[in-house]
Amino acid sequence: MAPGSGLPASPAECRRRAREAPEGRVWGCAMPGTLLLLFAYLTYLALGTGVFWLLESPAAHDSSERFQRDKWALLRNFTCLDGPALDSLIRGIIQAYQNGHIVLDNTTSMGRWEFVGSFFFSVSTITTIGYGNLSPRTMGARLFCIFFALVGIPLNLVVLNRLGHLMQQGVHSCARMLGGTWKDPAKARWLVGSSALLSGLLLFLLLPPLLFSHVEGWSYVEGFYFSFITLSTVGFGDYVIGMNPSRNYPLWYKNTVSLWILFGMAWLALIIKLILSLLEAPRGSYPCYCHSSKGNFKTRSWRQGLDGEAEPHFPQPGCYLEGPVIMNCPEPSVQVSCCGKDS
Amino acid sequence: MAPGSGLPASPAECRRRAREAPEGRVWGCAMPGTLLLLFAYLTYLALGTGVFWLLESPAAHDSSERFQRDKWALLRNFTCLDGPALDSLIRGIIQAYQNGHIVLDNTTSMGRWEFVGSFFFSVSTITTIGYGNLSPRTMGARLFCIFFALVGIPLNLVVLNRLGHLMQQGVHSCARMLGGTWKDPAKARWLVGSSALLSGLLLFLLLPPLLFSHVEGWSYVEGFYFSFITLSTVGFGDYVIGMNPSRNYPLWYKNTVSLWILFGMAWLALIIKLILSLLEAPRGSYPCYCHSSKGNFKTRSWRQGLDGEAEPHFPQPGCYLEGPVIMNCPEPSVQVSCCGKDS
Repeated sequence: MAPGSGLPASPAECRRRAREAPEGRVWGCAMPGTLLLLFAYLTYLALGTGVFWLLESPAAHDSSERFQRDKWALLRNFTCLDGPALDSLIRGIIQAYQNGHIVLDNTTSMGRWEFVGSFFFSVSTITTIGYGNLSPRTMGARLFCIFFALVGIPLNLVVLNRLGHLMQQGVHSCARMLGGTWKDPAKARWLVGSSALLSGLLLFLLLPPLLFSHVEGWSYVEGFYFSFITLSTVGFGDYVIGMNPSRNYPLWYKNTVSLWILFGMAWLALIIKLILSLLEAPRGSYPCYCHSSKGNFKTRSWRQGLDGEAEPHFPQPGCYLEGPVIMNCPEPSVQVSCCGKDS
Repeated sequence: MAPGSGLPASPAECRRRAREAPEGRVWGCAMPGTLLLLFAYLTYLALGTGVFWLLESPAAHDSSERFQRDKWALLRNFTCLDGPALDSLIRGIIQAYQNGHIVLDNTTSMGRWEFVGSFFFSVSTITTIGYGNLSPRTMGARLFCIFFALVGIPLNLVVLNRLGHLMQQGVHSCARMLGGTWKDPAKARWLVGSSALLSGLLLFLLLPPLLFSHVEGWSYVEGFYFSFITLSTVGFGDYVIGMNPSRNYPLWYKNTVSLWILFGMAWLALIIKLILSLLEAPRGSYPCYCHSSKGNFKTRSWRQGLDGEAEPHFPQPGCYLEGPVIMNCPEPSVQVSCCGKDS
């Protein structure tokens, strides 16, 4: 096949073109990899579809039957309602609720467009969690929401970036201090890395459900599910804190949860970046180009420590893997950049 | 203040430390910047809170009054219902709906745990859109959802990364071809960059609302709001496609919307990355370290074109800004890395 014909090229052809062709002439080479990637993506989606269908479909069927039974029980109490009248009443109420026309009197301040609700809505917008327990109904608020998100989402990413960087730097400092004391940097890095992973897991995913089960009355698994769905910014909105009018919420609760969201998102983004680097690793080995601003460049693999030994747990502190989630830029004194596949 | 005391340092002190201190010793210097950033973040959130409160609060008040009127009209039709009985009925119905126990018979396949609904749920999970029109009710499905998202979110980022990269490469190729024909690379880059921005805006944000208003019956602004809230992965779930049982959806509709989501998210991530780079720019000028795998390193600002002239619209093709959203790694033949502030 002629180079530059636009058709997908074989891997060997790609490597040859990559060596010989000038910048940007290897577009066709990216295609087979992209098609394979899309195939893997669709397969993964199909797997999820099948499992969710299998797990949820019987439960939904049971719910539907239970609701029909409840409906007939209700009809016995209210003699002026017949079946179709009740159906249309229920449909009308749900539609009014979906359109935001029903504002129950006993919602908490989190569920109303007051200070707390508006603040919580702003947070859920720029973090892209988007619970949807509140959503703007007026055209003005919707248009403002778009502009607010357009600047707010990058601003939030800058903040998460900075927090993630500070966390990594903290871990790095600990590892260096301990490595200096023990005279064994590899062991210190391994220990500090594992401790950081474990304490993050405890602080952001395993302990908060205990708080939620105490304050919100959820089960531990419900709290864990809420924690993950929130920090990963999926935010279905089936569980939202502070929404139960029959419960008393302590004053410190919402502030603590806000801080948890901020730091937890930064932490989970680092974890997702780690998984991402593992997912992308089979495409080739990733050397790490470390260069100071003075121009002395060194190449080392992120899988190796400073001394060249295997480092299976974390990319080196100070050596930042290229990834879509969060990219940390080191301090001006030492500029480190990691990019590229072995050609 | 003694260096390394852990307290925030002055900017001048920071610059001095950055020049003198070894790697990682400038942790305290990051603190004043971080505090300023957090202050800006909170101010921005306060601004959003105020505007949303101002815009939505009167509308919510009107809705509440309208609902009370409707409720009294309803009471006249059903004589067996008194005020408190209707209140408790409404509350019971909404609670059952929120808990997923009400499954209306006339939902579309998108709103049920069948193939289409499960697939749509899987997509909304790994893209972190999380509309929440469907959410898992069984413990098994919730736990599976967590593991599914933990691998699926990075996988989705890899796919978006690749698509964004292909888009950038396409723009780059066009600019080079046109630049070669016109003998004016700067003008070609400017024109191709503007055209790419405009056509992306048309294809992903300005034209789709016309389709949605035709198929879903939404207004143009509602469709635009849905498009932005979806592609930015906020996903409140107040507008979801294919959910109106009274409308006929063409067969190609859902597939086309899926493709639109995939490519649109990749495109909007590039735009958000651009805004992010503008937000981060005031921290210092960002030189671009461009190095081939053969080791010849060049430094140039991303605000300058290849010829050194101002390039206000896009970072150079082939020169990738460091940012949290999507990081594109160029082809093996030329490895380009951009990182770091001027020290």
